[in-house]
Amino acid sequence: MALIFHTPGEPAGIGPELLVALSRRPCSGSRVAVASAQLLKAYADRLGLSLALVPFQEGQTLAAGQLGVVDVPLTIPGVPGQPDPANAAYVLTCLREAVRLARKHRGAIVTGPIHKATINDAGIAFSGHTEFLAAQTGCDLPVMMLVADSLRVALVTTHLPLRDVAAAISSARVRACLQILHQDLRAKFGIANPRIQVCGLNPHAGESGHLGHEDGQLIAPVIAQAQQQGWLVRGPIPADTAFTPHALSRCDAVLCMYHDQGLPVLKHVGFGRAVNVTLGLPLIRTSVDHGTAFDLAGRGLADPGSLIAAEALALDLLNS
Amino acid sequence: MALIFHTPGEPAGIGPELLVALSRRPCSGSRVAVASAQLLKAYADRLGLSLALVPFQEGQTLAAGQLGVVDVPLTIPGVPGQPDPANAAYVLTCLREAVRLARKHRGAIVTGPIHKATINDAGIAFSGHTEFLAAQTGCDLPVMMLVADSLRVALVTTHLPLRDVAAAISSARVRACLQILHQDLRAKFGIANPRIQVCGLNPHAGESGHLGHEDGQLIAPVIAQAQQQGWLVRGPIPADTAFTPHALSRCDAVLCMYHDQGLPVLKHVGFGRAVNVTLGLPLIRTSVDHGTAFDLAGRGLADPGSLIAAEALALDLLNS
Repeated sequence: MALIFHTPGEPAGIGPELLVALSRRPCSGSRVAVASAQLLKAYADRLGLSLALVPFQEGQTLAAGQLGVVDVPLTIPGVPGQPDPANAAYVLTCLREAVRLARKHRGAIVTGPIHKATINDAGIAFSGHTEFLAAQTGCDLPVMMLVADSLRVALVTTHLPLRDVAAAISSARVRACLQILHQDLRAKFGIANPRIQVCGLNPHAGESGHLGHEDGQLIAPVIAQAQQQGWLVRGPIPADTAFTPHALSRCDAVLCMYHDQGLPVLKHVGFGRAVNVTLGLPLIRTSVDHGTAFDLAGRGLADPGSLIAAEALALDLLNS
Repeated sequence: MALIFHTPGEPAGIGPELLVALSRRPCSGSRVAVASAQLLKAYADRLGLSLALVPFQEGQTLAAGQLGVVDVPLTIPGVPGQPDPANAAYVLTCLREAVRLARKHRGAIVTGPIHKATINDAGIAFSGHTEFLAAQTGCDLPVMMLVADSLRVALVTTHLPLRDVAAAISSARVRACLQILHQDLRAKFGIANPRIQVCGLNPHAGESGHLGHEDGQLIAPVIAQAQQQGWLVRGPIPADTAFTPHALSRCDAVLCMYHDQGLPVLKHVGFGRAVNVTLGLPLIRTSVDHGTAFDLAGRGLADPGSLIAAEALALDLLNS
């Protein structure tokens, strides 16, 4: 049975309570929390929810409503809304352990929100969830893809100031991202010959060089080369053409050059059920698309939509 | 009766036939083509469509199905799909005449697609339709806004290479665009106290400076100042938050910092019926959101959706 290892992330955020809420829903796989059992119980008690935690054992099949747990102790108790650097090591231990278990058992990991600044405040160099997982698994180039319903948007660059984006675009980088996207759409998503639209960097995809040269000089050659290999890749396409309903109906994924070129459409289409998938890792990892929402933590108000969707996608990918 | 002055644009493009097709639809105002009468007749004949052209006279009320015309002669006949620099002066004469008539008669202008390169090939310095109209009317800063259904997206920068965008963002420019947007939403759209979302420049609106300083240093002060005046302005908002259905339901317009931050969502929502409105001009000007489509010209295949929407919006604005 498919194993899903959940890391609920920052103990003071909404991750733990979302996992408690999720655990009450039916699941076609086995759910295992890699987290503090005490913390999950505390959130369940606080919200008046039942929680059937069962220590994780290999080969075990969990009954409906049961949540397996690999207990990772907190350093200090987690207080909703009050992140403490003392628990930063706990957050990372959960991630390491989940990666180890998922690789060993060919399961997937589904990650809840963490709080980068709190980890940095603990004196730990940490540039992001995805980068940490890439380093743990020896992956050089993780590629961020957001999924909402049938829309899939992958990014060549992610969390960069806009003024640094153009300089970060190179043929090598676009090619590497395109290869990882193509490979994972095949291997993880089970799409035999994926149809990919690649956006240009500039408005109107550079308008024949009048609005920037990168589209013609850096991106177009990569696409031509991919097409020669028989890949169903089109572009560079103006971003405001790539997302028309007609264009989307003819592709499996859109590769955007930067964050705000692709994600506004994705969040418009799929807000509350968007899932972050990390491509290029040697395991399946999906993630919620929201943050720790400290203002909501411990109140039972957070929307579990993204976590539900993240788990469902992880199960789909395991079964593809 | 509201007067709409139509310039069908490039004679070799799809503009003339779209206007012929439009003229067969009911209209609550009076339509006047500022174009070559011979050209319009030629397209009507080619497509087997009836066309009731009537020379425009002031104070005239046109019957249903009639199209007023201010005849501007072509230099050489227009051939579908074959733009010729010889007619570049014609294209600009139509625009100048339409502006003059619209200002005189308090009408609106609705512009079809032109082809910048063909005008440049005629040795005429011409940076764009909008810039030309601004110069004709003494407007320093035209602001481009795209409208689709209830979604309105205005842009602080438009047709710039992405690498030049960050340097083009200043407090003064954001402030000027915000003022024009606010003023025209009131004066032209009849919205008493417009609710405006202003996007950040960087992903996550800079994430407190971790992903760029412009959001906090350049954009936020402009918004704070506007709020002090009682304007219902919010921001800087991350672009992937600004376009969620919930966020859009609480605003009248989104001010984006650049082209591909806002237009992918707009074209996703409203492809085929999106309208370009130029704010800041001393007259109402709407435009189709598509190009000359030389490959379709003369074949009766072009979709009149955007022209229909552009005229309808111009009429709405005249009546607001």
